[in-house]
Amino acid sequence: MEKVKTGIAGLDEMLVGGIPRSHNVVVMGSFGTGKTTFGLQFLNQGLTDGEKGIFITLEEDEGSIIEDARSFGWDLQPSIDDERLVIVKLEPTDALSTISRIKSDLPKFIRNFEASRIVIDSISLLNMLFDNEHEKRDNIFALTQMIRDTGATCLMTAEVNDMNPMASRDGLVEYTTDGVVVLQYEEPKDKGEIRLTLRVVKMRRTNHSRRVRPYTIGNNGILVHAGADVF
Amino acid sequence: MEKVKTGIAGLDEMLVGGIPRSHNVVVMGSFGTGKTTFGLQFLNQGLTDGEKGIFITLEEDEGSIIEDARSFGWDLQPSIDDERLVIVKLEPTDALSTISRIKSDLPKFIRNFEASRIVIDSISLLNMLFDNEHEKRDNIFALTQMIRDTGATCLMTAEVNDMNPMASRDGLVEYTTDGVVVLQYEEPKDKGEIRLTLRVVKMRRTNHSRRVRPYTIGNNGILVHAGADVF
Amino acid sequence: MEKVKTGIAGLDEMLVGGIPRSHNVVVMGSFGTGKTTFGLQFLNQGLTDGEKGIFITLEEDEGSIIEDARSFGWDLQPSIDDERLVIVKLEPTDALSTISRIKSDLPKFIRNFEASRIVIDSISLLNMLFDNEHEKRDNIFALTQMIRDTGATCLMTAEVNDMNPMASRDGLVEYTTDGVVVLQYEEPKDKGEIRLTLRVVKMRRTNHSRRVRPYTIGNNGILVHAGADVF
Amino acid sequence: MEKVKTGIAGLDEMLVGGIPRSHNVVVMGSFGTGKTTFGLQFLNQGLTDGEKGIFITLEEDEGSIIEDARSFGWDLQPSIDDERLVIVKLEPTDALSTISRIKSDLPKFIRNFEASRIVIDSISLLNMLFDNEHEKRDNIFALTQMIRDTGATCLMTAEVNDMNPMASRDGLVEYTTDGVVVLQYEEPKDKGEIRLTLRVVKMRRTNHSRRVRPYTIGNNGILVHAGADVF
Amino acid sequence: MEKVKTGIAGLDEMLVGGIPRSHNVVVMGSFGTGKTTFGLQFLNQGLTDGEKGIFITLEEDEGSIIEDARSFGWDLQPSIDDERLVIVKLEPTDALSTISRIKSDLPKFIRNFEASRIVIDSISLLNMLFDNEHEKRDNIFALTQMIRDTGATCLMTAEVNDMNPMASRDGLVEYTTDGVVVLQYEEPKDKGEIRLTLRVVKMRRTNHSRRVRPYTIGNNGILVHAGADVF
Amino acid sequence: MEKVKTGIAGLDEMLVGGIPRSHNVVVMGSFGTGKTTFGLQFLNQGLTDGEKGIFITLEEDEGSIIEDARSFGWDLQPSIDDERLVIVKLEPTDALSTISRIKSDLPKFIRNFEASRIVIDSISLLNMLFDNEHEKRDNIFALTQMIRDTGATCLMTAEVNDMNPMASRDGLVEYTTDGVVVLQYEEPKDKGEIRLTLRVVKMRRTNHSRRVRPYTIGNNGILVHAGADVF
Repeated sequence: MEKVKTGIAGLDEMLVGGIPRSHNVVVMGSFGTGKTTFGLQFLNQGLTDGEKGIFITLEEDEGSIIEDARSFGWDLQPSIDDERLVIVKLEPTDALSTISRIKSDLPKFIRNFEASRIVIDSISLLNMLFDNEHEKRDNIFALTQMIRDTGATCLMTAEVNDMNPMASRDGLVEYTTDGVVVLQYEEPKDKGEIRLTLRVVKMRRTNHSRRVRPYTIGNNGILVHAGADVF
Repeated sequence: MEKVKTGIAGLDEMLVGGIPRSHNVVVMGSFGTGKTTFGLQFLNQGLTDGEKGIFITLEEDEGSIIEDARSFGWDLQPSIDDERLVIVKLEPTDALSTISRIKSDLPKFIRNFEASRIVIDSISLLNMLFDNEHEKRDNIFALTQMIRDTGATCLMTAEVNDMNPMASRDGLVEYTTDGVVVLQYEEPKDKGEIRLTLRVVKMRRTNHSRRVRPYTIGNNGILVHAGADVF
Repeated sequence: MEKVKTGIAGLDEMLVGGIPRSHNVVVMGSFGTGKTTFGLQFLNQGLTDGEKGIFITLEEDEGSIIEDARSFGWDLQPSIDDERLVIVKLEPTDALSTISRIKSDLPKFIRNFEASRIVIDSISLLNMLFDNEHEKRDNIFALTQMIRDTGATCLMTAEVNDMNPMASRDGLVEYTTDGVVVLQYEEPKDKGEIRLTLRVVKMRRTNHSRRVRPYTIGNNGILVHAGADVF
Repeated sequence: MEKVKTGIAGLDEMLVGGIPRSHNVVVMGSFGTGKTTFGLQFLNQGLTDGEKGIFITLEEDEGSIIEDARSFGWDLQPSIDDERLVIVKLEPTDALSTISRIKSDLPKFIRNFEASRIVIDSISLLNMLFDNEHEKRDNIFALTQMIRDTGATCLMTAEVNDMNPMASRDGLVEYTTDGVVVLQYEEPKDKGEIRLTLRVVKMRRTNHSRRVRPYTIGNNGILVHAGADVF
Repeated sequence: MEKVKTGIAGLDEMLVGGIPRSHNVVVMGSFGTGKTTFGLQFLNQGLTDGEKGIFITLEEDEGSIIEDARSFGWDLQPSIDDERLVIVKLEPTDALSTISRIKSDLPKFIRNFEASRIVIDSISLLNMLFDNEHEKRDNIFALTQMIRDTGATCLMTAEVNDMNPMASRDGLVEYTTDGVVVLQYEEPKDKGEIRLTLRVVKMRRTNHSRRVRPYTIGNNGILVHAGADVF
Repeated sequence: MEKVKTGIAGLDEMLVGGIPRSHNVVVMGSFGTGKTTFGLQFLNQGLTDGEKGIFITLEEDEGSIIEDARSFGWDLQPSIDDERLVIVKLEPTDALSTISRIKSDLPKFIRNFEASRIVIDSISLLNMLFDNEHEKRDNIFALTQMIRDTGATCLMTAEVNDMNPMASRDGLVEYTTDGVVVLQYEEPKDKGEIRLTLRVVKMRRTNHSRRVRPYTIGNNGILVHAGADVF
């Protein structure tokens, strides 16, 4: 089984080399856990490895995404100029036209662009475009299927349920994807420094570590401290 | 009472030989606990024992299922070629035609194929096809009755309630089936390695162990550590 | 006050001889706590004592019920042949005609058959036939009243609220019946063997023990360990 | 401020003599805590003191209520024969005609009968007759006002919220009445005998104890162990 | 910043002299914590200081309010006779006409009467007159604004959320008022005497103590034990 | 990356100089945690640094806001007179006209006024103007985008979810903004003085401390005790 590196030191070791190619993986976590950074780091690793990538965003516009990456030392502009990277901004306030883009233009575009890495930041905001449970669910299934058909490795970020940090806001995507990485914000009892922790809860067709690992977000992005246990 | 082996070492001992033939059993657990693996291992054991099987899936397509099995060393292709195994993919996004398949074609097919093992992965996704509680419930009852009539031993997987790992998402199937196996993802207080644990909560018409047992998912599938207690 | 034995050793002692005759008692518990077994044991005791009984089921068909009983060494067939026992299967998927049976045929039948013990397994599934709270409630009141009028001792099983094992799924039957027995599935902190525990929470017009007692489900049915306390 | 005795030894001491005359008090508790017994004991004390009483019931019929009382040694029949006690059975299944009784006949009857003690068992079941929050609320306010106008001391029983034993099912009556007595079912950590405890949470215009007291339900009804603290 | 005394010994010290004049303060607590007593004591202090007051009640009628006050030794009748105090009873069962009174007559009356202290007991019951969230909210905003315009110091009582004693039933008033005093009913682990505790959570434009203080309700009303800490 | 000082000693250190210019930051906390004070202190710092500011309020009118500031020693009047500060009061009770102001006049005004600091107190009350989830969400996205286009640094206050102090009432704004500061009201086990604590949970494109810090609200506003840990 061929693996693609996430570019996140420590995590690739936990995944015995990386994410299986063509997998569809969700990264779940509350605000401030670094989900967007995770997506950018994954994409940047692909660009470094000569792959093409698409970053689909509903939160920030292209300029902010480029700045986000630059603050970690990743320069996306050359890849954009070389047409090896496209940042697609979907408008969360214009549901009808955005849904239409998702259903018709985007699939065509993704197929034609032949990206091998796709990031969707975030599937939770994307799902908010749909009015009811049925449509949300159909969207997740259709999107997942469409991306699966392209053979690209896909990483989606997802917000978590306010009451349960081990469940996504919609409670579905963690069941339909091939892999789930959970990022958590944990407060120790002594109220000192907050800890960020990472778990690989699910990864189909490969072995993976099931340890709880601390990570930090520093000048070079996310770093999983694979040698250290939490607390 | 005749038993059929699950093929999961350690579990068959807990069940004093296996699942009573013709029972309808649900395996409940959150994402990443190995429900699909459980279903495949159960099916593979049947094929090994010369039985015929049907795997009904709503999550992954036939190719992925075959790959999932192969990653554990189970080669399903020969059985498919010999027409001893059929993988049925139901489309979760096309509710109307899928429901029609479930109500008319599938029962006929199951009766004609004369499988002695049936896996439904997952009853939770299947239930999402239906719009309201009444339809979900009627579907579970009708499906259960239909399978019961064939005399096949049936294993359904079910997602759990976000707030209660001892209840299925719909809160019904655990009451209507003959047996319930609960898979759990448990985090020890010292934040070391996550433990997976298995409980046989219910199994009609047979004695069974009521201990909490740890299990692992390795290169040969699920292994229940029946000699060891948890924590 | 005349008592009828439940046939469950240990419990009859807790009830100072048994359930007061003509009482309407609910046995609440989650899946796997032995509610159906409890009902069968209660019914079998009546048959042994020369009484007539009716077992109303929505979960299993007559054959499965007979098998369930046989697995505990209780042979129901002779009583069925002697017309001292009737197993009534209500179809949970055919709401309209089942409701009509409950409202007209069943009352007539119960009155004519002159059973002195009635089991309804389960009132929770029966309640699912009704569309709204009002109808569920009216059904419980009407059914309770109808059975009360026959003078039979009645035992209903009920599923519990996912979030509170001391409340039934509908939250009503425990308030309207004369007695409540709660069966619980309890996991000790050391994660060893799961314990099943029984509490008599309510029993009108008689004294009863208020201790928490462990019980087991063995080859001869339920056995309450009345001499032992839990943990 | 004139007091009326509840007839419950230990509680009258906590209330410094009893409930202030003409107060409207609610007794809240889950099933099995003795709410109906509490109501009967309160009524029986009134009959003993030469007062007239009305017992309004939605759960049990007149015969059961008389039997309930007899099991504690209280003979209600002479008072019924002397027209000093009336047991009014409201039919919970016949909402329209029952509501009409509550709104027109009952007020007239209560005024004419000149009872000085009224028990409503239970306000929760009575409230279930109404379809929505507005009607439930209006009913509680109108009923409370009507009874207040008669000058009788009134005791209502109420079921508790499944998730919070300190709140009534409807969450309103504890705010609108003059007094609240909470009955609780408490399970000690060592899983021995269940304890029943009583709290006087609110009693307008009088001092009262705020201790948590254990009570038992024995051959002579409820006995509050006012000298002993709980646990 | 001018302060007005609440008349509650211990609390005025916590507030460094009292509530800032013209503030709108909410007192939140569950039943039995003395909210009505708090309001009466606040009003009585105003009368003692020569101010005029209005007590708006939805729970009790004028007679009961006068009796409530008398039980603490506060004689309201002379102030009513001198037209320095008015008790306004709003009918909670007659929503339409009561709402009309709140919207037109009451504002005029309040402005003309020139009260410097207003008590609303309770804003939660008043809010129940309105059918939906929008109307409830608009009512709170309009009422608050209207009272603010009169320059009177206003104290509202509010019931708490069953699941969170630090939130009001409607979850809004604690955010829109200038100050929040929380009354709590707290049960110590040893199940002895229940403790009542008071917290000043918010008080705009003044310093205040943030300690948790015990209080008692005795013959002279509420007494905050400002020198003692809780537990 | 240029930073703007919040003016809150201790917090600017945690943010390594302040909030990145043009960021959109939300301050979340329950009532009484000082959110309005935070907003005023942020704005006052801007005025001190010669910047122009807009304070948009839905809770208090201009006079109260000026008084709030004055109680901390910040005199806003000169800045208002110099047209360097505008306080905009939106009427929460007049939804339609307020929404129209938000959608048309306000954007024009903000662009023309050329403020470099904007405070919205609070986004939760502002969101209550909208009837459903879709409109609330669209409003947050549109407002955020509009403010982002002006290049101003924006601080919004938000109320928290009653059940989870780490989530805003609407559960969205913490995901869409560039930064999140959480203010918490924490009660120590010994029930002494309540502690207020601050966490910087998220701040895009800059490093920041992840420690839990106590803060106090004193005569000069908020002071974060950056050298001290909590408990």
